[in-house]
Amino acid sequence: MEKKLIVDVCLSPQLYPAYQKEDSIVVVIDVLRATSAMCTAFEFGVEKMIPVATLEEATEYKKNGFLVGAERNGIAIEGFDFGNSPYSYMTENIKGKTVVISTTNGTQAIEAARDAYKVVIGAFTNITSLCDWLLSQNRNVLLLCSGWKNRLNLEDSVFAGAVTERLIKNNAYQTGDAALAALFLYQQTQQSQVKFFHSSSHSKRLAAMGLKKDIKYCFSLDKTQIIPILEGKYLVKME
Amino acid sequence: MEKKLIVDVCLSPQLYPAYQKEDSIVVVIDVLRATSAMCTAFEFGVEKMIPVATLEEATEYKKNGFLVGAERNGIAIEGFDFGNSPYSYMTENIKGKTVVISTTNGTQAIEAARDAYKVVIGAFTNITSLCDWLLSQNRNVLLLCSGWKNRLNLEDSVFAGAVTERLIKNNAYQTGDAALAALFLYQQTQQSQVKFFHSSSHSKRLAAMGLKKDIKYCFSLDKTQIIPILEGKYLVKME
Repeated sequence: MEKKLIVDVCLSPQLYPAYQKEDSIVVVIDVLRATSAMCTAFEFGVEKMIPVATLEEATEYKKNGFLVGAERNGIAIEGFDFGNSPYSYMTENIKGKTVVISTTNGTQAIEAARDAYKVVIGAFTNITSLCDWLLSQNRNVLLLCSGWKNRLNLEDSVFAGAVTERLIKNNAYQTGDAALAALFLYQQTQQSQVKFFHSSSHSKRLAAMGLKKDIKYCFSLDKTQIIPILEGKYLVKME
Repeated sequence: MEKKLIVDVCLSPQLYPAYQKEDSIVVVIDVLRATSAMCTAFEFGVEKMIPVATLEEATEYKKNGFLVGAERNGIAIEGFDFGNSPYSYMTENIKGKTVVISTTNGTQAIEAARDAYKVVIGAFTNITSLCDWLLSQNRNVLLLCSGWKNRLNLEDSVFAGAVTERLIKNNAYQTGDAALAALFLYQQTQQSQVKFFHSSSHSKRLAAMGLKKDIKYCFSLDKTQIIPILEGKYLVKME
Protein backbone atom coordinates (compact mmCIF):
# COMPACT_ATOMS: atom_id res chain seq x y z
CA MET A 1 0.00 0.00 0.00
CA GLU A 2 1.23 3.44 -0.91
CA LYS A 3 2.28 5.49 2.07
CA LYS A 4 -0.18 8.33 2.37
CA LEU A 5 0.41 11.85 3.47
CA ILE A 6 -0.93 12.79 6.88
CA VAL A 7 -3.17 15.68 7.83
CA ASP A 8 -3.50 16.28 11.54
CA VAL A 9 -4.78 19.02 13.82
CA CYS A 10 -3.09 20.54 16.84
CA LEU A 11 -5.85 22.09 18.94
CA SER A 12 -3.63 24.25 21.15
CA PRO A 13 -0.22 25.88 20.58
CA GLN A 14 0.86 24.23 23.82
CA LEU A 15 0.52 20.79 22.20
CA TYR A 16 2.63 21.73 19.19
CA PRO A 17 5.71 19.74 20.33
CA ALA A 18 3.57 16.57 20.42
CA TYR A 19 2.48 17.06 16.78
CA GLN A 20 5.57 18.65 15.25
CA LYS A 21 7.05 16.92 12.21
CA GLU A 22 10.07 18.35 10.43
CA ASP A 23 8.59 18.08 6.97
CA SER A 24 5.06 19.36 7.66
CA ILE A 25 3.46 22.48 6.33
CA VAL A 26 1.91 24.23 9.32
CA VAL A 27 -1.28 26.25 8.82
CA VAL A 28 -1.79 28.72 11.67
CA ILE A 29 -5.47 29.33 12.41
CA ASP A 30 -7.04 32.07 14.50
CA VAL A 31 -10.42 32.61 12.89
CA LEU A 32 -11.65 35.16 15.47
CA ARG A 33 -9.77 37.26 14.45
CA ALA A 34 -5.99 37.36 13.97
CA THR A 35 -5.54 35.21 10.86
CA SER A 36 -8.71 36.61 9.28
CA ALA A 37 -7.34 40.12 9.88
CA MET A 38 -3.96 39.16 8.37
CA CYS A 39 -5.62 37.90 5.19
CA THR A 40 -7.58 41.17 5.01
CA ALA A 41 -4.44 43.26 5.49
CA PHE A 42 -2.73 41.55 2.55
CA GLU A 43 -5.87 41.85 0.44
CA PHE A 44 -5.74 45.61 1.14
CA GLY A 45 -2.15 45.85 -0.02
CA VAL A 46 0.07 45.53 3.04
CA GLU A 47 3.53 44.42 1.87
CA LYS A 48 4.79 42.62 4.96
CA MET A 49 3.58 41.84 8.45
CA ILE A 50 5.76 41.11 11.46
CA PRO A 51 3.90 38.91 13.94
CA VAL A 52 5.30 39.29 17.45
CA ALA A 53 4.27 37.36 20.54
CA THR A 54 4.72 40.05 23.20
CA LEU A 55 3.42 43.58 23.69
CA GLU A 56 6.97 44.61 24.60
CA GLU A 57 8.13 43.79 21.09
CA ALA A 58 5.08 45.54 19.63
CA THR A 59 5.85 48.66 21.68
CA GLU A 60 9.48 48.63 20.56
CA TYR A 61 8.40 48.54 16.90
CA LYS A 62 5.88 51.35 17.52
CA LYS A 63 8.65 53.52 18.99
CA ASN A 64 10.65 52.88 15.84
CA GLY A 65 7.93 54.28 13.63
CA PHE A 66 6.20 51.11 12.45
CA LEU A 67 2.46 50.74 12.03
CA VAL A 68 1.45 48.31 14.77
CA GLY A 69 -1.66 46.30 15.55
CA ALA A 70 -1.98 45.10 19.14
CA GLU A 71 -4.85 43.28 20.80
CA ARG A 72 -5.41 41.37 24.03
CA ASN A 73 -8.64 39.66 25.13
CA GLY A 74 -10.55 41.00 22.15
CA ILE A 75 -9.67 44.64 22.85
CA ALA A 76 -7.38 46.86 20.76
CA ILE A 77 -4.57 48.19 22.94
CA GLU A 78 -4.52 51.95 23.27
CA GLY A 79 -1.66 53.76 21.58
CA PHE A 80 -1.39 51.35 18.65
CA ASP A 81 -2.68 51.77 15.10
CA PHE A 82 -4.91 48.73 14.77
CA GLY A 83 -6.52 46.06 16.85
CA ASN A 84 -7.57 42.64 15.68
CA SER A 85 -10.60 43.57 13.61
CA PRO A 86 -10.37 42.80 9.88
CA TYR A 87 -12.27 46.05 9.33
CA SER A 88 -9.44 48.07 10.87
CA TYR A 89 -7.15 46.84 8.07
CA MET A 90 -9.52 47.84 5.28
CA THR A 91 -7.68 51.08 4.63
CA GLU A 92 -5.46 52.63 1.98
CA ASN A 93 -3.00 53.58 4.74
CA ILE A 94 -1.44 50.13 4.83
CA LYS A 95 -0.72 49.86 1.11
CA GLY A 96 2.93 48.94 0.53
CA LYS A 97 3.67 49.19 4.26
CA THR A 98 5.07 46.82 6.85
CA VAL A 99 2.65 46.25 9.74
CA VAL A 100 3.60 44.68 13.07
CA ILE A 101 0.90 42.64 14.82
CA SER A 102 0.57 41.08 18.28
CA THR A 103 -2.59 39.30 19.40
CA THR A 104 -3.83 37.18 22.32
CA ASN A 105 -3.45 33.80 20.66
CA GLY A 106 -2.66 33.90 16.94
CA THR A 107 0.79 35.41 17.07
CA GLN A 108 1.73 32.98 19.87
CA ALA A 109 0.84 30.09 17.60
CA ILE A 110 3.02 31.50 14.82
CA GLU A 111 5.83 31.80 17.35
CA ALA A 112 5.41 28.13 18.36
CA ALA A 113 5.62 26.93 14.75
CA ARG A 114 8.34 29.31 13.60
CA ASP A 115 10.83 26.53 12.75
CA ALA A 116 8.44 24.41 10.68
CA TYR A 117 9.19 23.58 7.05
CA LYS A 118 6.61 26.17 5.96
CA VAL A 119 4.16 28.28 7.98
CA VAL A 120 1.10 29.72 6.25
CA ILE A 121 -1.94 31.62 7.47
CA GLY A 122 -5.43 30.14 7.18
CA ALA A 123 -8.92 31.56 7.67
CA PHE A 124 -12.38 31.02 6.23
CA THR A 125 -11.66 34.12 4.18
CA ASN A 126 -8.91 32.34 2.19
CA ILE A 127 -9.96 28.70 2.59
CA THR A 128 -10.26 27.74 -1.08
CA SER A 129 -6.93 29.08 -2.26
CA LEU A 130 -5.32 27.69 0.91
CA CYS A 131 -6.67 24.18 0.33
CA ASP A 132 -5.85 24.21 -3.39
CA TRP A 133 -2.29 25.20 -2.57
CA LEU A 134 -1.96 22.57 0.18
CA LEU A 135 -3.21 19.89 -2.23
CA SER A 136 -0.55 20.96 -4.75
CA GLN A 137 2.31 20.55 -2.26
CA ASN A 138 2.35 16.79 -1.64
CA ARG A 139 3.38 17.31 1.98
CA ASN A 140 2.16 16.40 5.44
CA VAL A 141 -0.10 19.13 6.79
CA LEU A 142 -0.52 20.22 10.39
CA LEU A 143 -3.43 22.53 11.11
CA LEU A 144 -2.41 24.53 14.18
CA CYS A 145 -5.33 26.10 16.03
CA SER A 146 -4.49 29.13 18.14
CA GLY A 147 -7.33 28.40 20.55
CA TRP A 148 -7.89 30.61 23.57
CA LYS A 149 -5.08 30.85 26.13
CA ASN A 150 -3.96 27.28 25.46
CA ARG A 151 -7.52 25.97 25.53
CA LEU A 152 -9.41 24.69 22.52
CA ASN A 153 -11.79 27.07 20.81
CA LEU A 154 -14.70 26.02 18.71
CA GLU A 155 -14.22 28.20 15.62
CA ASP A 156 -10.57 27.24 14.98
CA SER A 157 -11.40 23.55 15.49
CA VAL A 158 -14.34 23.77 13.09
CA PHE A 159 -12.19 25.52 10.49
CA ALA A 160 -9.57 22.77 10.85
CA GLY A 161 -12.36 20.26 10.17
CA ALA A 162 -13.43 22.17 7.08
CA VAL A 163 -9.88 22.10 5.71
CA THR A 164 -9.53 18.41 6.57
CA GLU A 165 -12.70 17.63 4.62
CA ARG A 166 -11.33 19.36 1.53
CA LEU A 167 -7.91 17.67 1.81
CA ILE A 168 -9.16 14.10 2.19
CA LYS A 169 -11.67 14.32 -0.66
CA ASN A 170 -9.34 12.75 -3.21
CA ASN A 171 -8.05 10.19 -0.77
CA ALA A 172 -4.54 11.65 -0.80
CA TYR A 173 -4.31 12.05 2.98
CA GLN A 174 -4.84 9.88 6.00
CA THR A 175 -6.09 11.60 9.12
CA GLY A 176 -4.71 11.71 12.62
CA ASP A 177 -7.27 11.34 15.44
CA ALA A 178 -7.46 15.09 16.02
CA ALA A 179 -8.11 15.72 12.32
CA LEU A 180 -10.89 13.13 12.39
CA ALA A 181 -12.35 14.72 15.51
CA ALA A 182 -12.25 18.16 13.85
CA LEU A 183 -13.83 16.70 10.70
CA PHE A 184 -16.71 15.08 12.62
CA LEU A 185 -17.14 18.32 14.56
CA TYR A 186 -17.27 20.37 11.35
CA GLN A 187 -19.77 17.98 9.78
CA GLN A 188 -22.01 18.24 12.84
CA THR A 189 -21.86 22.04 12.88
CA GLN A 190 -22.81 22.08 9.19
CA GLN A 191 -26.11 20.59 10.29
CA SER A 192 -26.65 23.28 12.90
CA GLN A 193 -24.77 26.36 11.71
CA VAL A 194 -26.77 28.82 13.74
CA LYS A 195 -26.33 26.95 17.00
CA PHE A 196 -22.61 26.81 16.35
CA PHE A 197 -22.25 30.54 15.77
CA HIS A 198 -23.98 31.30 19.03
CA SER A 199 -22.19 28.59 20.99
CA SER A 200 -18.54 29.56 20.62
CA SER A 201 -17.36 31.32 23.76
CA HIS A 202 -15.31 33.83 21.78
CA SER A 203 -18.27 34.58 19.51
CA LYS A 204 -20.22 35.39 22.65
CA ARG A 205 -17.35 37.52 23.95
CA LEU A 206 -17.11 39.51 20.70
CA ALA A 207 -20.87 39.81 20.32
CA ALA A 208 -21.01 41.28 23.83
CA MET A 209 -18.48 43.88 22.65
CA GLY A 210 -20.73 44.79 19.75
CA LEU A 211 -18.52 43.04 17.19
CA LYS A 212 -21.11 40.88 15.44
CA LYS A 213 -20.04 42.41 12.12
CA ASP A 214 -16.54 41.06 12.69
CA ILE A 215 -17.86 37.59 13.46
CA LYS A 216 -19.93 37.53 10.29
CA TYR A 217 -16.96 38.67 8.20
CA CYS A 218 -14.58 36.12 9.74
CA PHE A 219 -16.98 33.26 8.93
CA SER A 220 -17.31 34.36 5.28
CA LEU A 221 -15.63 32.17 2.69
CA ASP A 222 -13.08 33.34 0.13
CA LYS A 223 -12.86 37.07 0.58
CA THR A 224 -9.33 36.79 -0.82
CA GLN A 225 -7.12 34.41 -2.77
CA ILE A 226 -3.99 35.47 -0.90
CA ILE A 227 -2.12 33.04 1.34
CA PRO A 228 0.21 34.82 3.78
CA ILE A 229 3.40 32.81 4.34
CA LEU A 230 6.16 33.21 6.91
CA GLU A 231 9.59 34.13 5.54
CA GLY A 232 12.03 34.70 8.36
CA LYS A 233 10.39 37.18 10.69
CA TYR A 234 8.02 38.45 7.99
CA LEU A 235 4.66 37.32 6.76
CA VAL A 236 4.49 38.02 3.03
CA LYS A 237 2.01 37.34 0.27
CA MET A 238 2.71 33.95 -1.31
CA GLU A 239 3.53 34.43 -5.00
CA MET B 1 -29.72 34.87 35.69
CA GLU B 2 -28.63 32.00 37.88
CA LYS B 3 -24.93 31.21 37.62
CA LYS B 4 -24.67 27.81 36.06
CA LEU B 5 -22.17 25.10 36.71
CA ILE B 6 -19.59 24.49 34.01
CA VAL B 7 -18.68 21.23 32.30
CA ASP B 8 -15.55 21.37 30.19
CA VAL B 9 -13.20 18.91 28.54
CA CYS B 10 -9.41 18.85 28.65
CA LEU B 11 -8.29 16.86 25.62
CA SER B 12 -4.72 16.23 26.73
CA PRO B 13 -3.10 15.94 30.19
CA GLN B 14 -0.59 18.54 28.99
CA LEU B 15 -3.36 21.15 28.82
CA TYR B 16 -4.58 20.45 32.36
CA PRO B 17 -3.07 23.64 33.84
CA ALA B 18 -5.13 25.70 31.35
CA TYR B 19 -8.39 24.06 32.50
CA GLN B 20 -7.72 23.46 36.17
CA LYS B 21 -10.21 24.95 38.65
CA GLU B 22 -9.83 24.42 42.36
CA ASP B 23 -13.40 23.32 42.93
CA SER B 24 -13.88 21.00 39.94
CA ILE B 25 -14.49 17.31 40.01
CA VAL B 26 -12.04 15.79 37.53
CA VAL B 27 -13.06 12.66 35.62
CA VAL B 28 -10.00 10.86 34.24
CA ILE B 29 -10.75 9.08 30.97
CA ASP B 30 -8.67 6.47 29.16
CA VAL B 31 -11.25 4.38 27.37
CA LEU B 32 -8.71 2.17 25.56
CA ARG B 33 -7.94 0.77 28.08
CA ALA B 34 -6.67 2.00 31.46
CA THR B 35 -9.83 3.44 33.00
CA SER B 36 -11.96 0.63 31.55
CA ALA B 37 -9.56 -1.88 33.12
CA MET B 38 -9.70 -0.06 36.47
CA CYS B 39 -13.50 -0.26 36.52
CA THR B 40 -13.27 -3.97 35.73
CA ALA B 41 -10.73 -4.57 38.50
CA PHE B 42 -13.06 -3.01 41.09
CA GLU B 43 -16.02 -4.95 39.70
CA PHE B 44 -13.97 -8.11 40.25
CA GLY B 45 -13.28 -7.24 43.86
CA VAL B 46 -9.94 -5.45 44.01
CA GLU B 47 -9.83 -3.41 47.23
CA LYS B 48 -7.44 -0.64 46.22
CA MET B 49 -5.39 0.35 43.21
CA ILE B 50 -2.27 2.49 43.24
CA PRO B 51 -1.87 4.33 39.92
CA VAL B 52 1.78 5.23 39.30
CA ALA B 53 3.15 7.25 36.40
CA THR B 54 6.54 5.56 35.95
CA LEU B 55 7.70 1.98 35.38
CA GLU B 56 10.37 2.58 38.04
CA GLU B 57 7.68 3.03 40.68
CA ALA B 58 5.83 -0.01 39.32
CA THR B 59 9.00 -2.11 39.55
CA GLU B 60 9.64 -0.95 43.12
CA TYR B 61 6.13 -2.05 44.17
CA LYS B 62 6.61 -5.39 42.37
CA LYS B 63 9.82 -6.00 44.34
CA ASN B 64 7.87 -5.34 47.52
CA GLY B 65 5.40 -8.11 46.75
CA PHE B 66 2.49 -6.15 45.25
CA LEU B 67 0.41 -7.33 42.33
CA VAL B 68 1.31 -4.92 39.52
CA GLY B 69 -0.15 -4.11 36.11
CA ALA B 70 2.21 -2.38 33.69
CA GLU B 71 1.68 -1.46 30.05
CA ARG B 72 3.35 0.74 27.48
CA ASN B 73 2.21 1.29 23.87
CA GLY B 74 -0.53 -1.30 24.18
CA ILE B 75 1.79 -4.07 25.33
CA ALA B 76 1.88 -5.65 28.80
CA ILE B 77 5.38 -5.31 30.24
CA GLU B 78 7.09 -8.63 30.94
CA GLY B 79 7.63 -9.55 34.57
CA PHE B 80 4.42 -7.89 35.80
CA ASP B 81 1.10 -9.52 36.72
CA PHE B 82 -1.27 -7.68 34.40
CA GLY B 83 -1.25 -5.42 31.39
CA ASN B 84 -3.95 -3.00 30.40
CA SER B 85 -6.62 -5.44 29.22
CA PRO B 86 -9.85 -5.46 31.22
CA TYR B 87 -9.89 -9.23 30.67
CA SER B 88 -6.65 -9.64 32.60
CA TYR B 89 -8.43 -8.28 35.69
CA MET B 90 -11.37 -10.68 35.45
CA THR B 91 -9.88 -13.01 38.00
CA GLU B 92 -10.52 -14.16 41.58
CA ASN B 93 -6.84 -13.49 42.33
CA ILE B 94 -7.39 -9.76 42.81
CA LYS B 95 -10.24 -10.06 45.33
CA GLY B 96 -9.51 -7.97 48.41
CA LYS B 97 -6.03 -7.13 47.11
CA THR B 98 -4.19 -3.89 46.36
CA VAL B 99 -3.08 -3.69 42.73
CA VAL B 100 -0.53 -1.20 41.39
CA ILE B 101 -1.02 0.00 37.81
CA SER B 102 1.09 2.02 35.37
CA THR B 103 -0.01 2.67 31.77
CA THR B 104 1.06 4.74 28.76
CA ASN B 105 -1.42 7.58 29.21
CA GLY B 106 -4.09 6.98 31.86
CA THR B 107 -1.92 6.96 34.95
CA GLN B 108 -0.13 10.11 33.72
CA ALA B 109 -3.49 11.89 33.54
CA ILE B 110 -4.30 10.85 37.12
CA GLU B 111 -0.90 12.19 38.15
CA ALA B 112 -1.65 15.54 36.47
CA ALA B 113 -4.97 15.94 38.30
CA ARG B 114 -3.84 14.57 41.66
CA ASP B 115 -4.51 17.82 43.55
CA ALA B 116 -8.04 18.39 42.21
CA TYR B 117 -11.02 18.63 44.57
CA LYS B 118 -12.05 15.10 43.60
CA VAL B 119 -10.65 12.71 40.97
CA VAL B 120 -12.83 9.88 39.69
CA ILE B 121 -12.43 7.28 36.97
CA GLY B 122 -14.71 7.24 33.94
CA ALA B 123 -15.28 4.75 31.13
CA PHE B 124 -18.16 3.63 28.93
CA THR B 125 -18.36 0.66 31.29
CA ASN B 126 -19.47 2.86 34.21
CA ILE B 127 -20.98 5.83 32.33
CA THR B 128 -24.48 5.79 33.82
CA SER B 129 -23.50 5.60 37.47
CA LEU B 130 -20.73 8.14 36.80
CA CYS B 131 -23.12 10.66 35.24
CA ASP B 132 -25.81 10.12 37.90
CA TRP B 133 -23.23 10.77 40.59
CA LEU B 134 -21.83 13.86 38.83
CA LEU B 135 -25.34 15.27 38.52
CA SER B 136 -25.87 14.76 42.25
CA GLN B 137 -22.74 16.75 43.19
CA ASN B 138 -23.66 20.30 42.10
CA ARG B 139 -20.04 21.00 41.13
CA ASN B 140 -18.07 22.11 38.09
CA VAL B 141 -16.90 19.09 36.12
CA LEU B 142 -13.71 18.72 34.11
CA LEU B 143 -13.51 15.69 31.84
CA LEU B 144 -9.79 14.95 31.49
CA CYS B 145 -8.94 12.83 28.46
CA SER B 146 -5.71 10.86 28.69
CA GLY B 147 -5.22 10.96 24.93
CA TRP B 148 -2.13 9.41 23.35
CA LYS B 149 1.25 10.79 24.35
CA ASN B 150 -0.16 14.29 24.84
CA ARG B 151 -2.12 14.16 21.58
CA LEU B 152 -5.90 13.97 21.37
CA ASN B 153 -7.42 10.54 20.84
CA LEU B 154 -10.80 9.93 19.33
CA GLU B 155 -12.30 7.49 21.83
CA ASP B 156 -11.61 9.59 24.95
CA SER B 157 -12.96 12.70 23.20
CA VAL B 158 -16.11 10.88 22.12
CA PHE B 159 -16.65 9.56 25.63
CA ALA B 160 -16.27 13.10 26.99
CA GLY B 161 -18.97 14.16 24.52
CA ALA B 162 -21.25 11.36 25.69
CA VAL B 163 -20.87 12.47 29.32
CA THR B 164 -21.41 16.12 28.34
CA GLU B 165 -24.67 15.18 26.61
CA ARG B 166 -25.95 13.49 29.75
CA LEU B 167 -24.89 16.36 32.04
CA ILE B 168 -26.48 19.17 30.03
CA LYS B 169 -29.81 17.40 29.54
CA ASN B 170 -31.48 19.12 32.45
CA ASN B 171 -29.91 22.47 31.69
CA ALA B 172 -27.86 22.48 34.89
CA TYR B 173 -24.51 23.03 33.16
CA GLN B 174 -23.10 25.43 30.65
CA THR B 175 -20.42 24.08 28.34
CA GLY B 176 -16.91 25.26 27.63
CA ASP B 177 -15.85 25.24 23.97
CA ALA B 178 -14.04 21.93 24.31
CA ALA B 179 -17.11 20.32 25.89
CA LEU B 180 -19.22 21.61 23.01
CA ALA B 181 -16.70 20.29 20.50
CA ALA B 182 -16.72 16.88 22.21
CA LEU B 183 -20.52 16.91 22.27
CA PHE B 184 -20.80 17.69 18.54
CA LEU B 185 -18.17 15.03 17.86
CA TYR B 186 -20.09 12.46 19.90
CA GLN B 187 -23.35 13.30 18.16
CA GLN B 188 -21.71 12.88 14.76
CA THR B 189 -20.15 9.53 15.69
CA GLN B 190 -23.56 8.32 16.90
CA GLN B 191 -24.67 8.62 13.28
CA SER B 192 -21.73 6.54 12.06
CA GLN B 193 -20.75 4.27 14.92
CA VAL B 194 -19.01 1.67 12.78
CA LYS B 195 -16.85 4.21 10.97
CA PHE B 196 -15.83 5.64 14.32
CA PHE B 197 -14.73 2.28 15.71
CA HIS B 198 -12.52 1.68 12.71
CA SER B 199 -11.18 5.24 12.55
CA SER B 200 -9.54 5.70 15.94
CA SER B 201 -5.79 5.23 15.63
CA HIS B 202 -5.57 3.31 18.91
CA SER B 203 -8.45 1.04 17.86
CA LYS B 204 -6.38 0.23 14.77
CA ARG B 205 -3.28 -0.33 16.90
CA LEU B 206 -5.11 -2.71 19.26
CA ALA B 207 -6.92 -4.50 16.44
CA ALA B 208 -3.55 -5.12 14.78
CA MET B 209 -2.43 -6.76 18.05
CA GLY B 210 -5.45 -9.08 17.95
CA LEU B 211 -7.26 -7.20 20.72
CA LYS B 212 -10.63 -6.59 19.06
CA LYS B 213 -12.31 -8.31 22.01
CA ASP B 214 -10.85 -5.62 24.30
CA ILE B 215 -12.11 -2.82 22.06
CA LYS B 216 -15.61 -4.25 22.02
CA TYR B 217 -15.62 -4.59 25.81
CA CYS B 218 -14.30 -1.06 26.37
CA PHE B 219 -17.08 0.42 24.22
CA SER B 220 -19.79 -1.48 26.12
CA LEU B 221 -22.02 0.56 28.39
CA ASP B 222 -22.59 -0.05 32.08
CA LYS B 223 -20.72 -3.24 32.86
CA THR B 224 -20.44 -1.96 36.42
CA GLN B 225 -21.99 0.60 38.75
CA ILE B 226 -18.71 1.24 40.55
CA ILE B 227 -16.98 4.62 40.38
CA PRO B 228 -13.33 4.43 41.39
CA ILE B 229 -12.24 7.55 43.27
CA LEU B 230 -8.78 8.78 44.26
CA GLU B 231 -8.10 8.95 48.01
CA GLY B 232 -4.53 9.99 48.64
CA LYS B 233 -2.38 7.63 46.60
CA TYR B 234 -5.13 5.02 46.34
CA LEU B 235 -8.02 4.48 44.00
CA VAL B 236 -10.88 3.01 45.97
CA LYS B 237 -14.47 2.08 45.28
CA MET B 238 -16.74 5.06 45.94
CA GLU B 239 -19.24 4.16 48.68
